[in-house]
Formats: sequence, C-alpha cells, structure tokens
Amino acid sequence: MTVLYMKNADNISEFTIYRLSIYKRCLEQLERENLKTVSSKDFAARFGLNSAQVRKDLAYFGEFGIRGMGYPITTLKKQILSILGLAESSSGQKTWNAVLIGAGKIGTALLKYQHFANYGFEIVAAFDAAPESSEYAQQQQAGLVDTPIPLYPFEQLEQTISEQPTDIAILATSEENAQEIVNRLTRAGIHGILSFVPVQLLVPPDVKVRTIDIIAELQCLTYHLHSEALTQAENADETDSESHTT
Amino acid sequence: MTVLYMKNADNISEFTIYRLSIYKRCLEQLERENLKTVSSKDFAARFGLNSAQVRKDLAYFGEFGIRGMGYPITTLKKQILSILGLAESSSGQKTWNAVLIGAGKIGTALLKYQHFANYGFEIVAAFDAAPESSEYAQQQQAGLVDTPIPLYPFEQLEQTISEQPTDIAILATSEENAQEIVNRLTRAGIHGILSFVPVQLLVPPDVKVRTIDIIAELQCLTYHLHSEALTQAENADETDSESHTT
Repeated sequence: MTVLYMKNADNISEFTIYRLSIYKRCLEQLERENLKTVSSKDFAARFGLNSAQVRKDLAYFGEFGIRGMGYPITTLKKQILSILGLAESSSGQKTWNAVLIGAGKIGTALLKYQHFANYGFEIVAAFDAAPESSEYAQQQQAGLVDTPIPLYPFEQLEQTISEQPTDIAILATSEENAQEIVNRLTRAGIHGILSFVPVQLLVPPDVKVRTIDIIAELQCLTYHLHSEALTQAENADETDSESHTT
Repeated sequence: MTVLYMKNADNISEFTIYRLSIYKRCLEQLERENLKTVSSKDFAARFGLNSAQVRKDLAYFGEFGIRGMGYPITTLKKQILSILGLAESSSGQKTWNAVLIGAGKIGTALLKYQHFANYGFEIVAAFDAAPESSEYAQQQQAGLVDTPIPLYPFEQLEQTISEQPTDIAILATSEENAQEIVNRLTRAGIHGILSFVPVQLLVPPDVKVRTIDIIAELQCLTYHLHSEALTQAENADETDSESHTT
C-alpha cells in the first residue's frame, strides 16, 4: 500500500493534498460520532464537498472504497495521515519542528496558539529584527504569553537552525525582509515555508512555499459581491426596460 | 470593456480570481519601479509565475496584451481592480465594510492590523462570545491596542449589521460556534465570509466562503517534506543494492 502513493507522488496536485487534509479532519469528526464507514456521496453531502472530487482525489491512493459499503473511516484517516507525513510510528506521532520569523501581530498570534502539537507541529524558536521591541515581547511583558517560545534576533537564524533540527519556517516578516530571509532559510536547508507575507517569493525548485494571503482572499470575496451586484443591476435594468415596452 | 468580464463572470474559476489579486500586487510593484509595459514572459519570470498561466488568466478579460510590447501596466492594474470590485469611483476608492467574529488570538491580530484601508477594507465592528474576557479586551487593557474597534457580544450581531451596511464577515470563532454564527450571518444578509476556523461550513449557494486553514497549509508542506524523504530513502536503497550487486 505504501508503494502506491510513492509511485504516484509526482502526479498529485497541491490542491488534492490540501483537500486530503480537509478530508482527514472530516473523517476525525465522523470517528468522534462512532461511525465506521461512509460513502463518498454521504461524506460529500455532510461536509459540503463535491462527491466526484472526493472519489477522484482518493483514487490517487488506490482503492479504499468498498463497493456498497463506502470507505472504512479509521483506515482511510490513517492512510491520509501517512500520506501527509503525519503517521504515528512506534515511538509516537512524528512531530515536525518549525521556526517562526517575524514576531509581529500575526506572528505573535501563532506563537501563542497552543494546539499545534495536536496536529504534529511544534514551534521551537522565533526570530525578529528587533526582538526586544517586538509585538511578542510587548505581550510577554504585559503577562499575556502563557508558554514563552525563545525569541532571537535575525542574526542567530543559521546558528539556531544548525543546532536544532528544523523542518519548516513560518514567515511573518515585513515585505522588505521576506526574500532575504527566505534566501537565508533555504541556504540553511529549510525545504518547507509557510508565508503570511504578501510578496512573491523566489525559491529553488526543491523548496515548497505555501502562501496565506489574507488580502487576496478578501479580494476573492469582493469579486463575488461585485459580480453579484452587477448581475442584480443588469436584471433590474432588463425588468425595467421590459416594463416600459409592454 | 466592462461588458467583457460581466459576460464571462460565470466561467472564471476562483483560482483565477485569486491569481488576479496576486498579479495586481505584482503590477503595483512594477509601477513603483516606473515601468510602463511588461511582457507576460518577463512578468512571470520576475515574480516566479507561470507565463502560460498568466496569459490564460488574463485572456478571460479580453485582449490586454499588445503584440511585441506586452501589457500596459497601469491599464491592466486598473482593469483588475475593477474586476475585483475595487475600482476607484469619482467619490474615491470603494470601501468594503467587514465585521470580525471571535476576538481571540488571530481575531485580535486582524483587529490590530492597521493597513486594511490601503486595500479597500474596513473592519467596522467585532463580536465575541465573552467580550470582556476576550484576548482583544486583555490586550486593550494592557495598552496594546492603538485604535480600538467596537467589540460587542454575539447577541448584538443582527442589530449591529442591520444598523451599519456590512459586506463581509471574517470568522475567527471556536469550531463549536462557527456554523451557528454563519447561519445567523447569512440570514442577516452577509454574502461573503472569510473563515479562519478549520471546519467545513455549509452555506446557501449565493454565499461565498473562503477558508484560511493554517493546519492544512502546514500539512501540504509536511506532505512535500515526507515525499522528499521517501524519495531520498528509495534512491539510497537503490544505490545500496547496486553497490552490493556489482
């Protein structure tokens, strides 16, 4: 079974991988409800997903569904965990170490988030251009940080990463600093970056960047609202001219 | 020109819309560098984009490119702004009003973000299950909030929205509260929701939800890192067995 997804790994789109993570969460919900199996149709309806899409996504990883019975929930969840690199081994769940760069507003919110461990992640260190005056330091001084994470100046990035195995960097710097920090991260061996900075980052082909762009997401909504308003105005126009001609 | 994108609006994928927002930002960067035109090839190379994708995305909106000269930067930027519902009118830039629901860690980071206005957004009110003990209230008491935004209990959601025109809701509640709040928001006439809550939300077809799922994004990275490690292990195995057989 392991071989199946390894062989296909190059053909799986990032969109599929993202959806697998969503499916995993939905399967966990069904597990909590003590369900054992679920059809792709029921699964899709329950969580507002597209059932054809669900079947297609899961087909990449071999035949999970049992005709007439649907997917075995726990088995499928475990398989997805394994695909995502989050499978539990005999020594417990794999934990991926992350560093956070830029202890501003968003960075601080992430540093204060206590539940990364539930998902197999741990932020082991943070970095800022000016640690002592950073948002994180201010909140710590105000007694608003429960379990502090060590915060270093940018200068200590390479040394800290070399001393502590680090898989992922979460980027929440200023736009000006982002590319240079990314260059340093990739030279230091980091191959996975989650960026909250709204700039296009250039990285070597073996480095994966995922960007969370809050403004772009909001603009997808305004596109929708704007189109809706235009359509309504158009329809109103048509109704209006019809009422004139009849 | 306006008619072009209205006619095609139904055929444009969300992915294209998202990328248009990215292109807009890149075009603004080129404007700051006083460039007048750019070819799709140079544009793609400069920002690490796919030039075929760029041409395909922009083709939805008619022929912007001038053969041999490329795209006129300012015209294209304005056209994208218009498509996204962010065009300036004679009365200045359109501002989209948003409410934020859930004044926890991420919600507070967003409430403290001072630059939404630059992108045509304003958070006009915030809501929390327990405003007085919320993260936002705590930071405010500690003197860490510069320009406070009014924070109300959930009970006042409908009334506040009815009194103040609201286009968008930003959702940062607990998982337990999310669907019920979304039901109330859609009944109150909200058609655009940006959710930071990692649950699948069910909404009527005319309501657009965009979800920012930090855990799913991180799991896309672990998939990549895990696949890379598997490939390396496989290659090492092959090298190993080759060295044994020769």
